[in-house]
Amino acid sequence: MTQLSAAKEGVITEEMKTVAKNEGLDPEVLRSLIADGRVVIPKNRSRNFTPLGIGKKLRTKINANLGSSVDHCKVEHELEKLKAAHDAGADSVMDLSTGGNLKEMRSAIIENSELMVGTVPIYGVATELTKQDKDVTGMTPDMIFEEIERQCEEGVDFITVHCGVTRRSVSFAGKDQRIGGIVSRGGSLLAAWMHKNKKENPLYSEYNRLLKICFKHDVTLSLGDGLRPGALADATDQAQIEELIVIGELTKRARERGVQVMVEGPGHVPLDQVETNMKLQQRICDEAPFYVLGPLTTDCAPGYDHISGAIGGAIAAASGADFLCVVTPAEHLCLPSPEDIFMGVMGTRIAAHSGDIVKGVGGAKEQSLEMSKARKKLDWDGMFRYALDPVMAKQRRELSESTDSNVCTMCGKLCAVDLHNITM
Amino acid sequence: MTQLSAAKEGVITEEMKTVAKNEGLDPEVLRSLIADGRVVIPKNRSRNFTPLGIGKKLRTKINANLGSSVDHCKVEHELEKLKAAHDAGADSVMDLSTGGNLKEMRSAIIENSELMVGTVPIYGVATELTKQDKDVTGMTPDMIFEEIERQCEEGVDFITVHCGVTRRSVSFAGKDQRIGGIVSRGGSLLAAWMHKNKKENPLYSEYNRLLKICFKHDVTLSLGDGLRPGALADATDQAQIEELIVIGELTKRARERGVQVMVEGPGHVPLDQVETNMKLQQRICDEAPFYVLGPLTTDCAPGYDHISGAIGGAIAAASGADFLCVVTPAEHLCLPSPEDIFMGVMGTRIAAHSGDIVKGVGGAKEQSLEMSKARKKLDWDGMFRYALDPVMAKQRRELSESTDSNVCTMCGKLCAVDLHNITM
Repeated sequence: MTQLSAAKEGVITEEMKTVAKNEGLDPEVLRSLIADGRVVIPKNRSRNFTPLGIGKKLRTKINANLGSSVDHCKVEHELEKLKAAHDAGADSVMDLSTGGNLKEMRSAIIENSELMVGTVPIYGVATELTKQDKDVTGMTPDMIFEEIERQCEEGVDFITVHCGVTRRSVSFAGKDQRIGGIVSRGGSLLAAWMHKNKKENPLYSEYNRLLKICFKHDVTLSLGDGLRPGALADATDQAQIEELIVIGELTKRARERGVQVMVEGPGHVPLDQVETNMKLQQRICDEAPFYVLGPLTTDCAPGYDHISGAIGGAIAAASGADFLCVVTPAEHLCLPSPEDIFMGVMGTRIAAHSGDIVKGVGGAKEQSLEMSKARKKLDWDGMFRYALDPVMAKQRRELSESTDSNVCTMCGKLCAVDLHNITM
Repeated sequence: MTQLSAAKEGVITEEMKTVAKNEGLDPEVLRSLIADGRVVIPKNRSRNFTPLGIGKKLRTKINANLGSSVDHCKVEHELEKLKAAHDAGADSVMDLSTGGNLKEMRSAIIENSELMVGTVPIYGVATELTKQDKDVTGMTPDMIFEEIERQCEEGVDFITVHCGVTRRSVSFAGKDQRIGGIVSRGGSLLAAWMHKNKKENPLYSEYNRLLKICFKHDVTLSLGDGLRPGALADATDQAQIEELIVIGELTKRARERGVQVMVEGPGHVPLDQVETNMKLQQRICDEAPFYVLGPLTTDCAPGYDHISGAIGGAIAAASGADFLCVVTPAEHLCLPSPEDIFMGVMGTRIAAHSGDIVKGVGGAKEQSLEMSKARKKLDWDGMFRYALDPVMAKQRRELSESTDSNVCTMCGKLCAVDLHNITM
């Protein structure tokens, strides 16, 4: 049984108990949310770690992308990034490696991660072909499904598969229709394959084959948006929404088959379209957990995309996104370093926290309240306790020159809080 | 004549011509916006720099707070911060000094700044009293107005005055009503003064005296929100809104007297209340330019408040805020360093840009489009040109290992953009 099929049959699994306890939710309420497909617990049958739920009524979760490239492909480096993601407070990591020995990279991450691990199996196929100097369009459906099966056997908890990249949806993403074209690696690989082979996307046409593999290992499907907008100008366009409609159909089929499923979303989206995108997904995909990349609210912030991602991510979370993918300061420029990962996760945690205050989940509002009370009392230990990054807060305070004082170096004796406390 | 009184009489000043040209606006349209109080051009008669407008139909502007404290009071340090603000792209700075020789500090900033300069004159009075070990509640109305007059004569372009902190508005900010109390220095000083002296705020009761000084020098009034919420739990409460109502009345009186006026706003505000706050101010203050501090969408991000400020600031700008005050990573912990100022300004620029894309002002949308086109062509020089921080973007690219290649180290040969360009 998968978490979903168990929930449908009224069974509350150990994983559900743990998640319910950690989220302060009634186990029966959680079971019912899982049965309806509003919550998933991505956890490969074969892995052992503290499970987390993603979806309605739960704290917004955060994923950090790891992964090598041709230019940077040391396992140690990936493990450093894993540690940075973990230390910064990510809930999940994805291994998006495309350089070096992918199997070794993946095994190291799965073995060392206390967090959920996701992958994009098609990268494995494409990387192998590229290594052999073969064209990526030479891949066969069997290669893809065999890679998926291998990775599920190895223990990945969720996989991104771009099943909604159909010949019809891609037809809206041509150069006359879009500024940014296709910016998803998986999406562009499949579009190239379909173009060359004049065939439908096998992940779509042989979707049942995929469901069978995922059911066996209870691997959660993350239906990737291969046609996500990579430019503000392309946001919420025909290509994106046509793909979303296909994903909505596939969500339903996965649920019926007992396979846990979440949906991926944009991307680059103008601020005033972010909420619309969340509502649209909730309607079209029947409130399946929504996993968004950013969204970025400007195209012009390379070097600082953790900030543009935090802006979009906060609005997305507040209006219903359940899972935020970190965008790091390195986005659009180079492969991220461990420091980039750390900063990206912190920015995304601020976004998630801002959203959770609005959603009323995960104790975020209560934490903000306790922080404010500590501030009013000038109780620095309290302020560190309720800070999203207590280490950073403490360090900055300690490096300043007012450590002995109850006020800080910003206002000194003219501290507004102190003054108000004394005189009122 | 002030810019406002000139505009009312149908005169298009040199400053208006410059602002209109730089914003791509018809000078007559700008004049009319100024005449109606929807735009201000903060510029002391005695100063000479390229003027900027703040308000409707204009690019969202950014202010960075400088200023010494008792613990850090070197003039050189303030000039370094001024340089950081300038280099990062701020439009204005405020000297909020409360340590060292304030006159010297202020003169150095006014002399060296190519940007608008604002101050909070009451800090001068309070700092002087504190230096003499006297109680701040011992200040007299004359001390306050004389300090204001001095600073206007010295050349400040705008001043924050907390005229809306009345006995009535403060009555809602007591410890039984609020979690965070009063967190504005000016607000808490005046509240303490009123409490001790059992008198109304002189900046309110003798408002005409203030208007006379400002008119003389064409110094723009920035009606400070001394009762701004300093905790999410206090956002949009009676104290804040009662003060806003008073500020609305005072805005009208300033406009009638020919004094340029803008209004300051929160603070700490939950994400779903940010837009409400913008709409409320626009209604109550008849669309006077709105100058907001953040807002911060969580209380729990000390060390990273440039990110929580960017989240709130972007939403604020998109829903009508005209002027964003930078919150730096040092907020709530210590006085900011030049590096903090730089990061804070960059975060705020991203927020303003995200908002301006929605507002359709300042060429932000066009810049985003050009960036996307450059990305699609993998045209790196183009990407640097349209980046908000070209230096950072270029540096990160150059430090990575794909400098010779048209792709980057993230995806290498599996670059989605490249793949899509080749195959489509």
